[in-house]
Amino acid sequence: MGIEPLVMDCKEYIDTKSRIVDSFLRDYFKGQSKPAVLQEAMLYSLFAGGKRLRPILALASYEACGGNAEDIVPYAATLELVHTYSLIHDDLPTMDNDDFRRGQPTNHKVYGEAVAILAGDALLTEAFSILSGMPRPANIKHENIIRIIREISEAAGINGMVAGQVQDLLSENKQPDRQTLEFIHTRKTAALIRASVRLGPILYDSSREVHTALTHYGNSVGLAFQIIDDILDIEGKTEDLGKPVGSDERINKMTYPRVYGIEKSREIAEQLITDGISSISTFSSDADPLRRIARYLLIRKN
Amino acid sequence: MGIEPLVMDCKEYIDTKSRIVDSFLRDYFKGQSKPAVLQEAMLYSLFAGGKRLRPILALASYEACGGNAEDIVPYAATLELVHTYSLIHDDLPTMDNDDFRRGQPTNHKVYGEAVAILAGDALLTEAFSILSGMPRPANIKHENIIRIIREISEAAGINGMVAGQVQDLLSENKQPDRQTLEFIHTRKTAALIRASVRLGPILYDSSREVHTALTHYGNSVGLAFQIIDDILDIEGKTEDLGKPVGSDERINKMTYPRVYGIEKSREIAEQLITDGISSISTFSSDADPLRRIARYLLIRKN
Repeated sequence: MGIEPLVMDCKEYIDTKSRIVDSFLRDYFKGQSKPAVLQEAMLYSLFAGGKRLRPILALASYEACGGNAEDIVPYAATLELVHTYSLIHDDLPTMDNDDFRRGQPTNHKVYGEAVAILAGDALLTEAFSILSGMPRPANIKHENIIRIIREISEAAGINGMVAGQVQDLLSENKQPDRQTLEFIHTRKTAALIRASVRLGPILYDSSREVHTALTHYGNSVGLAFQIIDDILDIEGKTEDLGKPVGSDERINKMTYPRVYGIEKSREIAEQLITDGISSISTFSSDADPLRRIARYLLIRKN
Repeated sequence: MGIEPLVMDCKEYIDTKSRIVDSFLRDYFKGQSKPAVLQEAMLYSLFAGGKRLRPILALASYEACGGNAEDIVPYAATLELVHTYSLIHDDLPTMDNDDFRRGQPTNHKVYGEAVAILAGDALLTEAFSILSGMPRPANIKHENIIRIIREISEAAGINGMVAGQVQDLLSENKQPDRQTLEFIHTRKTAALIRASVRLGPILYDSSREVHTALTHYGNSVGLAFQIIDDILDIEGKTEDLGKPVGSDERINKMTYPRVYGIEKSREIAEQLITDGISSISTFSSDADPLRRIARYLLIRKN
């Protein structure tokens, strides 16, 4: 099978699943909450063109375990809230100071810093409201809901995303250093992607072997995703990326290309994708979406 | 019984319980997480002299239901993480721009805005890690853990604390207006205090009547607490309060004294405390700490 048909299939899968996630999110936030500007600010960033990669990985992983993706859409969708909150806060003037994201002005450019911070806070909080508050399908155990809350909060917290972001800020304009790079990337991006993939086996109550295989897949794909992001930041066209090319370089971020060079970075990403796919080699064709998404990440343009 | 012995008893109760909460929190954060500055910033605000009112209300409420407070210390302690996160974010230059809190420089004055925002994010996230990750006592049901996660996230989110803070910012220097005042106070402060009190009956799996009574107590005491805070901001001595007196007035915050005057505000607070206590009038002496805390709030100086 050549790469093109794979990618076409994958795009259709991604489109279908992202429509399901978006539809849930739109319904969930349909009622106007007050003050209106808070919800507006949340939805502005939530519907700013995100690919819904994390929810889609959770849905694909649940399918790979043998489940019906529709059972877990609300839980999967919370990953997008957590991801969006992190983008809003990372973009703040006191952090990465980004004016654009996905071709649109960043949240604080539109709503001001105070509302942007609070919209981020609200998105993070709302993720836990959904995780704890949605009607639970009969085939999903209470204790596994608690386990995914733990999974997501740990991926997002002091040993995950937040730690990665703090270290990222501390490392600006510092000498390239492999250990620090690894620390930042595994926490800032890979942790939540890994958690997304792990939602599947946790909610499906899969065997230890399935857990281990999908955790390995999540680790590999999560790290590869960030490396490719780093490469795209240097190589990508502004129009594909939606932000000025080279914005990481401008402030001397600790990136893979800066530490390893572009060619070596690409090799590492390719190897990680290969490893990720081989870790689920014994899975049935139910895992094909996971395999295709992994390959797709490698050739994406934004 | 005069008011003084009541207050003395109450102070002892508060001291004992706050030591238990602090001891849990110190143990929990004993391991150094990296980068060190993140955990330092979190602990700086977490141990800046907070009264632990919210955890103590949860413990007292659980006792009022017939439970042993020690069973739920970790769950109760998470309320302090959520409260501390909200203080750090509220104090930011782009929000209330406060340089001091409880007599100490605010988080961003010590660690800078970026780390302060992220320390707040991490505290909020860690609350959910503890709620979902702590060993569950055998007498507490899985589904009730999920219910308190929902309770806390809803009190903190777009229909609770965050909404109150956004409306508070929007209302600065606006004409006094009772409806807006009510909106802000019930969400910004009362919602999390109510949730704290409701933790007791949820975790103890109490009857509907007990839930209703304690919810009423939580609503009344939560609102009274904020009204008294508003009064103290005008009347309190700087040394008792740890921040400049009149800091709310300076920026024309929507406060009870501004809308109703000081005397009327005090009357409303007293009435709310009376209502709160009478809503638990049928409870046994196990509810005495809740009764005493309510009276104590009325005469506190900081």
